[in-house]
Amino acid sequence: MYIYTKYRFMKFLLPIFLLLSFSNIKAQADSTFIRYIYDLALENGEAYENLRSLCKDIGARVTGSAEAEMAVKWGEKLLKSYNFDKVYLQEIQVPHWERGTTEAAWIENEKGDILKLNILALGGSIGTNGLISGEVIEVKNVDALKLLNPNEIKDKIVFLSEAFNQKHINTFSAYGYCYPLRGDGANEASKLGAKAVVIRSLATPTDNHPHTGVTHFDKDVNKIPAAAMSTQNADMVSKWIKQGKVTLKMEMDCKVFPDVTSYNVIAEITGKDKKIITLGGHLDSWDVGEGAHDDGAGIVHSIEALRILKTLNYKPNHTIRCVLFMNEENGNFGGKSYAKLAKEANEEHICAIESDRGGFLPIGFDVVENTNHLELVKQYENLLFDYDLLKFKNGHGGVDIGPLKEYYPEMMQLGMAINSQEYFNYHHSEADVFEVVNKRELELGAAAMSTMVYLMDITLD
Amino acid sequence: MYIYTKYRFMKFLLPIFLLLSFSNIKAQADSTFIRYIYDLALENGEAYENLRSLCKDIGARVTGSAEAEMAVKWGEKLLKSYNFDKVYLQEIQVPHWERGTTEAAWIENEKGDILKLNILALGGSIGTNGLISGEVIEVKNVDALKLLNPNEIKDKIVFLSEAFNQKHINTFSAYGYCYPLRGDGANEASKLGAKAVVIRSLATPTDNHPHTGVTHFDKDVNKIPAAAMSTQNADMVSKWIKQGKVTLKMEMDCKVFPDVTSYNVIAEITGKDKKIITLGGHLDSWDVGEGAHDDGAGIVHSIEALRILKTLNYKPNHTIRCVLFMNEENGNFGGKSYAKLAKEANEEHICAIESDRGGFLPIGFDVVENTNHLELVKQYENLLFDYDLLKFKNGHGGVDIGPLKEYYPEMMQLGMAINSQEYFNYHHSEADVFEVVNKRELELGAAAMSTMVYLMDITLD
Repeated sequence: MYIYTKYRFMKFLLPIFLLLSFSNIKAQADSTFIRYIYDLALENGEAYENLRSLCKDIGARVTGSAEAEMAVKWGEKLLKSYNFDKVYLQEIQVPHWERGTTEAAWIENEKGDILKLNILALGGSIGTNGLISGEVIEVKNVDALKLLNPNEIKDKIVFLSEAFNQKHINTFSAYGYCYPLRGDGANEASKLGAKAVVIRSLATPTDNHPHTGVTHFDKDVNKIPAAAMSTQNADMVSKWIKQGKVTLKMEMDCKVFPDVTSYNVIAEITGKDKKIITLGGHLDSWDVGEGAHDDGAGIVHSIEALRILKTLNYKPNHTIRCVLFMNEENGNFGGKSYAKLAKEANEEHICAIESDRGGFLPIGFDVVENTNHLELVKQYENLLFDYDLLKFKNGHGGVDIGPLKEYYPEMMQLGMAINSQEYFNYHHSEADVFEVVNKRELELGAAAMSTMVYLMDITLD
Repeated sequence: MYIYTKYRFMKFLLPIFLLLSFSNIKAQADSTFIRYIYDLALENGEAYENLRSLCKDIGARVTGSAEAEMAVKWGEKLLKSYNFDKVYLQEIQVPHWERGTTEAAWIENEKGDILKLNILALGGSIGTNGLISGEVIEVKNVDALKLLNPNEIKDKIVFLSEAFNQKHINTFSAYGYCYPLRGDGANEASKLGAKAVVIRSLATPTDNHPHTGVTHFDKDVNKIPAAAMSTQNADMVSKWIKQGKVTLKMEMDCKVFPDVTSYNVIAEITGKDKKIITLGGHLDSWDVGEGAHDDGAGIVHSIEALRILKTLNYKPNHTIRCVLFMNEENGNFGGKSYAKLAKEANEEHICAIESDRGGFLPIGFDVVENTNHLELVKQYENLLFDYDLLKFKNGHGGVDIGPLKEYYPEMMQLGMAINSQEYFNYHHSEADVFEVVNKRELELGAAAMSTMVYLMDITLD
């Protein structure tokens, strides 16, 4: 009966409690301040010029490269120019892989017809040590590959050919389903004795540029060469294979080097208490294109979000820390180190917000699964409606901020949700350059980040 | 007391009534059917290929041109190929204006420095009849112009220079504020005795291509030459004017011809009753670029929305009528005639949905102000959330469907709301070509139109 009474009591009073507490919080959220954030971003924003500089003055910046080292200096100098309370580097160890200068592949059929393929070695792949050749075995995906007999694979070149499922509304979902082709395909094919692996690029459209990205090998697995071909090429290879035996010849001189020292680049506005809200993206990119959408956009979103709060003379309750993470693309040692060092320093982390889905139109925020956190964000839905921030749901936070969860399981994590329709046209390819970013959409992303940092700063104890 | 009792009665029962009625309607809305609509659009859509054909096989198609005539044939043939229940043309009279072959302008300062401007005559402008020259008077906008004394304007060339207010989240709002520059500027300047008018292009970014569009003259006002210059040029002209007297020289040989006969192109799926739901966009465009976003996108959205319903073998309650309106851009005689002919034929129109905001990401629907109509749409919010259709509010329907309201004041009107951030980079300019349309965003627009037609067909009596 006690329980029943308590339940009845709660049932009637809970809506009133919620109403009261939400009303209080809503009263604190200053809609005029949010309007100032957007005005500043749209009229006098610096995100677009900062992105131009990162893309053109630095360029592609794969972990371990000279460009990555210069990007650290670029970030430190820019953050210092804004006179934040603290700007510092956090030393980390990161992998060092280089593409080299040779990358070529052809298919040949039994009649001797040849077709040159547009390929990119996958990050972490070894080189071929000269021209290699092998019969191509087409397998749809890694699940299908695992079912095959080693006799069918040994000394062959495995071609993983699954295409994005166009029915997914969010293209990150289609990417997720195909991710194992690139992430695990070479590892699994090597276990079965394959000579090399080629994959259909993880991309939305059918076009003619390949998309790279990391491939993973278990410690006890023999590394083999692995490359991605353009989606048009993949369709063509499938067509040739249907007509008869196809041989693939390829040469790549990519190489893994010893780990090197690099840095996360950090800036802070000191809060009234010592609790920390992190916002960030990743400073490294792949080594082709300019890493404009992935994740130059997230970098300038985060820097601009902090700059806006400072420019508006906002005095945060908690320390607002902007982190330009290094090495998201091939190892996530920036994110892992950041979380570990935070715990070792006994820091108190209450919230982290990441932007790593491009510089397109922001549409809302994903909240990492937790009963209360989504409700805390959704209370501001009406306030954000006029800014076209419309979608708040449970979902993915971000790769860089992810490791914090291990040490701070109760903390809130948010990933900015961004129109995903074009992202995988550019992702990890030569096409991801400054020119394909729209100025206003980028600025709206910075304003959305700044706004959410502000709202969580006033909402979280 | 009666009122009080009734009120109390209503207060307690209203939520239950709403719950029951909404549940009923929701039960009728088949979420699986909506999923089929999206699957078909995304996997086997024809909107993108149809847009390519309209842009490349026909091209720009200003009212009265050979291309507009060919576009009518293109639309009729395509609609007939889909075997709809009816396909027919609706004859209308439309203006005929031609740009001609000469379009050039320069500014010159007192030192004799000259700068060539990128200009486009505004639709409806007269030619200059040779090279004309006049002192440039910069005026911010039409409101400021109306306050000036004719002595200050007579024989001068008025330069209307107001820029888009970047603070507006929706760029159509910024466009709306600047619209009088182009729509009324020449008319008002002529009343004050100006020789010609040049305006800053109605565009979001600062770049170097001009944007045309219609300019309007009252019947008793002397027509004068009117042109738009690029936003970069406009900044430069303002800068020169700050430094001293500036003369503008220009020549244009554009010309107004007598009205010609043209057509709205119409297709229908016959309903169980005689009530009509119209969906459409406009087939005409300006004469530069390819009219891809404005409004090729709306044309292929509407055709594809109807094709999807037919392919899925949907048997509508009401007649679903797809209209490719002619002459939205300079007179709206397609829309006006459609409405007038509908009334004359005693047709019963219950709903109209327009797509005329480009082929970008659809984000929701604007509902033309009416107490109940917005609620009728918002009941489906949860159903549409997963498709990123998130914003339902009172707002603008569409220019083409607008005249129906005069004859059918109770009907529902909807305008598809589309990410507006890039629209005015391309609008009415040479940059509005097929290549700047994203395939998936276009397909999502067609699916959204098809879905909303389906939902309104089952919702409206």
